[in-house]
Amino acid sequence: MNQDYIQPDNWSIIEEGFDKERVKSSESLFSIGNGAMGQRANFEENYSGETFQGSYIAGIYYPDKTKVGWWKNGYPKYFAKVLNAPNWIGIEIEINGENLDLNNCKVIKNFRRELNMKEGWYHRSFEATLQNDTEISVNIRRFLSLDLDEVGLINYEITPLNKDARIKYKPYIDAGVTNEDANWDEKFWEHLETKHHENQAFVTAQTFKTHFKATTFMHNSILSNEKKLNIYSEIISATDEKIQFSYTVEVAQGVKSSIQKIGGYTVSLNHENTLIGAENAIKLALKKSYAQLLQDQIESWSKIWEMSDITIDGDVKAQQGIRFNIFQLNQTYLGKDSRLNIGPKGFTGEKYGGSTYWDTEAYCIPFYMATKDQQVARNLLIYRYNQLDKAIENAEKNLGFKNGAALYPMVTMNGEECHNEWEITHEEIHRNGAIAFAIFNYYRYTGDYSYIPEKGLEVLIGIARFWHQRANFSKDKNQFVILGVTGPNEYENNVNNNFYTNYIAKWCIDYAYEQIQKVSLEYPLDHKRIIEKVKLSDAELNDWKKVSGNMYFPKSDELGIYLQQDGFLDKDLVLVKDLDISQRPINQKWSWDRILRSPYIKQADVLQGFYFFEDHFSTEELKRNFEFYEAFTVHESSLSPCVHSIQAAKLDKMDMAYAFYLRTSRLDLDDYNKEVEEGCHITSMAGTWMSIVEGFGGMRVKNDTLHFSPKIPKEWTGYSFKINFRNQILKVAVTHNETQFALEGSTEITIFVNEKAVLVKPN
Amino acid sequence: MNQDYIQPDNWSIIEEGFDKERVKSSESLFSIGNGAMGQRANFEENYSGETFQGSYIAGIYYPDKTKVGWWKNGYPKYFAKVLNAPNWIGIEIEINGENLDLNNCKVIKNFRRELNMKEGWYHRSFEATLQNDTEISVNIRRFLSLDLDEVGLINYEITPLNKDARIKYKPYIDAGVTNEDANWDEKFWEHLETKHHENQAFVTAQTFKTHFKATTFMHNSILSNEKKLNIYSEIISATDEKIQFSYTVEVAQGVKSSIQKIGGYTVSLNHENTLIGAENAIKLALKKSYAQLLQDQIESWSKIWEMSDITIDGDVKAQQGIRFNIFQLNQTYLGKDSRLNIGPKGFTGEKYGGSTYWDTEAYCIPFYMATKDQQVARNLLIYRYNQLDKAIENAEKNLGFKNGAALYPMVTMNGEECHNEWEITHEEIHRNGAIAFAIFNYYRYTGDYSYIPEKGLEVLIGIARFWHQRANFSKDKNQFVILGVTGPNEYENNVNNNFYTNYIAKWCIDYAYEQIQKVSLEYPLDHKRIIEKVKLSDAELNDWKKVSGNMYFPKSDELGIYLQQDGFLDKDLVLVKDLDISQRPINQKWSWDRILRSPYIKQADVLQGFYFFEDHFSTEELKRNFEFYEAFTVHESSLSPCVHSIQAAKLDKMDMAYAFYLRTSRLDLDDYNKEVEEGCHITSMAGTWMSIVEGFGGMRVKNDTLHFSPKIPKEWTGYSFKINFRNQILKVAVTHNETQFALEGSTEITIFVNEKAVLVKPN
Repeated sequence: MNQDYIQPDNWSIIEEGFDKERVKSSESLFSIGNGAMGQRANFEENYSGETFQGSYIAGIYYPDKTKVGWWKNGYPKYFAKVLNAPNWIGIEIEINGENLDLNNCKVIKNFRRELNMKEGWYHRSFEATLQNDTEISVNIRRFLSLDLDEVGLINYEITPLNKDARIKYKPYIDAGVTNEDANWDEKFWEHLETKHHENQAFVTAQTFKTHFKATTFMHNSILSNEKKLNIYSEIISATDEKIQFSYTVEVAQGVKSSIQKIGGYTVSLNHENTLIGAENAIKLALKKSYAQLLQDQIESWSKIWEMSDITIDGDVKAQQGIRFNIFQLNQTYLGKDSRLNIGPKGFTGEKYGGSTYWDTEAYCIPFYMATKDQQVARNLLIYRYNQLDKAIENAEKNLGFKNGAALYPMVTMNGEECHNEWEITHEEIHRNGAIAFAIFNYYRYTGDYSYIPEKGLEVLIGIARFWHQRANFSKDKNQFVILGVTGPNEYENNVNNNFYTNYIAKWCIDYAYEQIQKVSLEYPLDHKRIIEKVKLSDAELNDWKKVSGNMYFPKSDELGIYLQQDGFLDKDLVLVKDLDISQRPINQKWSWDRILRSPYIKQADVLQGFYFFEDHFSTEELKRNFEFYEAFTVHESSLSPCVHSIQAAKLDKMDMAYAFYLRTSRLDLDDYNKEVEEGCHITSMAGTWMSIVEGFGGMRVKNDTLHFSPKIPKEWTGYSFKINFRNQILKVAVTHNETQFALEGSTEITIFVNEKAVLVKPN
Repeated sequence: MNQDYIQPDNWSIIEEGFDKERVKSSESLFSIGNGAMGQRANFEENYSGETFQGSYIAGIYYPDKTKVGWWKNGYPKYFAKVLNAPNWIGIEIEINGENLDLNNCKVIKNFRRELNMKEGWYHRSFEATLQNDTEISVNIRRFLSLDLDEVGLINYEITPLNKDARIKYKPYIDAGVTNEDANWDEKFWEHLETKHHENQAFVTAQTFKTHFKATTFMHNSILSNEKKLNIYSEIISATDEKIQFSYTVEVAQGVKSSIQKIGGYTVSLNHENTLIGAENAIKLALKKSYAQLLQDQIESWSKIWEMSDITIDGDVKAQQGIRFNIFQLNQTYLGKDSRLNIGPKGFTGEKYGGSTYWDTEAYCIPFYMATKDQQVARNLLIYRYNQLDKAIENAEKNLGFKNGAALYPMVTMNGEECHNEWEITHEEIHRNGAIAFAIFNYYRYTGDYSYIPEKGLEVLIGIARFWHQRANFSKDKNQFVILGVTGPNEYENNVNNNFYTNYIAKWCIDYAYEQIQKVSLEYPLDHKRIIEKVKLSDAELNDWKKVSGNMYFPKSDELGIYLQQDGFLDKDLVLVKDLDISQRPINQKWSWDRILRSPYIKQADVLQGFYFFEDHFSTEELKRNFEFYEAFTVHESSLSPCVHSIQAAKLDKMDMAYAFYLRTSRLDLDDYNKEVEEGCHITSMAGTWMSIVEGFGGMRVKNDTLHFSPKIPKEWTGYSFKINFRNQILKVAVTHNETQFALEGSTEITIFVNEKAVLVKPN
């Protein structure tokens, strides 16, 4: 564990005491979001210390010209960057003529942050003695409304403690922002228009190149002892990019003074005229009081928690971890808009760019299927359907593939590839498999087959065509092989016959083939429409089957395991436990070639295949492969421990399962990878959910029924979770003595518990 | 063939007619150099069209901050860039008030360039009608003195043809230059000091970071009808970076007017005070007349040609090709200074950066050994000896190797690695083998063993230690393997057990072992000194032999060939001849992953091993491997055709050998790779020399004797070359009827011709 300053608490993330070294980490951990926008926990007032300023709007990106050492054909021309949006939270504070800056106070006491996950707000409080010896007590609450998702609210309250104070509140909005992550130090926003009247102001700017328009707005009220004052801005400073107001109040010692700032963004994705949109957003917010808006927020979060909460008894750190993960996933993506997806850092940082990785299909969809209406998962599938043309274009342009073969991008905002390393962009093609798997998984879980004839089948055909063309026949092996890939374990590049890739390739072809037959029988009109559209012949289908029916899989008969790739056993097979601790994490200590030829595994690879296709293998096979590969796995990807946790639980290795659970659920809170200042690992958080529901809960869907084989770490007294399975809401509560099932639906259902059928009746 | 505007000529490179599209290509092809400096054939007068300005000083570089997409541990922090030096050739020309600019003349007639390789000068002439209707005839000769190698000379002569003309000559020197190839558009030169008096001027600048100082200087004389005029500069414009003079002359119609400009650089590598050095350089040049300096130049080149010329009768293009290659090699490197090396673009362009690749050892050393005093090749070996400490540091820092294992850099200026792709920098480790091979080759050819006890053995030990530590034992194979490499064929990355690499690794260990024994017996004092210095134990030596004695080599018994690497036969083995021509060159048409998994070979790889270690394999083995791999070789490296030419000749495939010879010798003249505007492929030019001497001449050194098996392409009537073999100069002249040998030394020698001993007596 690398940091432990976050206070254990069942429902809140809490920091106590001010430490400049922790500011950037806390800015990540205390981030807030509402699915449409989000922001790091930057201070509202000026702060001259080290900080990473970030506020983000879903779907708004900038195509940053690719930076590479040596250009290679096929590299994308740009990298779609998550964009630091204009600042709407800023409020400079002047106390008796002195600017408040926590980097420059005589004394700071009782500094505390709380991110209340249950209620969806962020609170910061402290007492400070300024250089001019004024002592103040400060309380700030901020939240981004779930209901009015273009609106955020700040209540910034100051009480002078030792004398009267003249307080100037100087709230501003500013489009003159830069990105931390920019290839060429360019500005990403171009100013268009500013406007202000009375207590509100608007700055409209657009992104260069992509021309997304955003109006950043604010409305301010000044209060004394919680009552609104009739006071207007005295001084206005306005440049092309920034508007700043100034309100002066004389506050007696002990009296609470505050500013309430409403702010946010309206964007051209949703508005013809973003300025009018912004004026309306303010009007809507002003219809309710601040207190009422906060109450609405608490209720909206309560609805989210009602369905998605997981309780863990007897282990507050484990409890805090899982809730932090669930909270962040809901802050990032709520499934309302099929144009959006789940960025790896959500709204907590800029690293990686893009919004969509295979993480969405491999890790996030199960969480959203089980905790939300099935339309949410469907929207995530539709996102890929809408980008099918781009995936076909990608395969044509970069691989010379024909006939509608589709290669989905590794990283994308709009369907175009925007990652620029050949070993990832061009070779980590297994991502295509996860996209097909998600369609299978969606149907398996929700029972909603309609997506396949409507949209999914076209995606499955494009992907099957890709694998058919990407495999080649090896005369030497008399089988089909897939050469030159990077598997899920990114500590290998350009390997031949990665087991996971070959396996999912075969599966994709077979599954597409089966669905074509099924749609042909059950949805003949859709079948006709699709086959005509994609021009698929029986001859081509036969060719597909030749590939899938004769695919090569590397294995060791002696060890009884599949090989991660050809030649894996030629490596110097020193176990992780025998590796000098000073050499870890290897990605910070070793050069790339050394990592590549080592046996060390960044994240589940063969085991990812066993995770997806568990039914295809015996428990004995899982055990042999798990024990072999776990011993070489360094888990330096956030996506790794969750899969191992699930499999360890299945194999009754409960201590191991628990250790992996803690590592995945507190990855950011405890900063295992020493990088939380850059933002949180959002997509891997869904893996934490899986490690409870599928790992300890042992939940599986088989033949349209739910199966459980619950287990419990010895550290816990009990845990419970709810899932929405086919519109029935089932609550599972596990203790050391028994497992209880409760059904909130109206129809009784049969589930299987440890292979025995159990009838569950409605409550 | 991609261009054919160069006029065939035995001794000169000639362009006729002015074509703006060809300016940048001709700037490369007509480059001049003298081993210490060199420059592209930029115009002296202003030119507003497309041009690539370049003037270079040997050994002067700039560490340009590395640019990569995704940083990986072990990447070097900078890339050593060849540096565009200040301009000393510039002379603006004003004719009757109009600036001469070939991009802006009414008429240009009889434009002609000639690079006279025999005499070492570059000449340009044309007749132009200006916008003001003045017609002029212009003749410019430029050369870089071989004798005074800090000095270049320009004679710029103008004759007004249709009226009298007021001509202003405005010569300048200018340190305000930029590099075409710069990662961050930074300036590389910082101005220090300017000075001028009478007809001479000096600008002193230093490179940022590396702080190389250079004084750029000029001295001007004005002539009328070839007689010097007593005229001084009328106007001086001087900024911090640039000094420009202006001389006005009234020239009658038909009268020849000219400016003679002496210019060049003195650098802190060679001078305590570069300004005083520059003043002395001008004084030295002025001691002789321009005519005398030109005569000296012709004589100096004549001496170079006397030893290094190859004549080809009956095929002017083949003749022109080989001379162009020999000329460029001598322009680039003359072996006077062991701090210098042979950059891949010499003084003709900036691409690739660095000065030293494995090209030097694999391709260039044989040329320099055979055509110059053996001290020249020795200097190239010493260059690596001097960088041994850096190579040891490199292996320690990036690979965690211990105990003096040395990994030489892929690209370097000063011994530090400066290439920034992991697949090259970290994995193309075979380069280490060529550095050891060069030591073996030097001794084999020159018979000078003294280098090994003096210096070479330490290098051999460092390299053997590297291979010993880099190989690992595969339990699966029960042999040692070398994983994760890039072989000479850079169209494969991160492969396992590249035959060439494994083979040369084993050879390096065995050769080092043998030399340790030999030095121990014959040079016991050196042996003691070295073993104590490098702390080499018998136990370590035994461990070396375990690796070299049990190295794994991939092969196919069925095909009777070695495999380029594990898994090569799994590829989709479509022959190059069956590949659609529209797909070539594949490096411009295909994405990197597609290239990597294809069977196509950029340059000799297995066959490079057969070239180095020909004696280790039978001709039958060579034939099988050659026929297999040649069919997959696309020769998209300049270093490829020469090896295939030599082997084709050995296998009596004379049409093939001839075709490869033409491709290698006229690569730049005919611009096969469509990139000559970026500069010429200097290091591969030594391969052209090898393809005649070793290919057609069949020259080999075996057991201290010279062997020949001469062959002749049917297109030629004869060819001849000289070589310096152990201080005996032997001339070989081959026609279709006979081969003659002439000896310029005083002692008769025995050579073997087609396996029969022949006694050659002095002339």
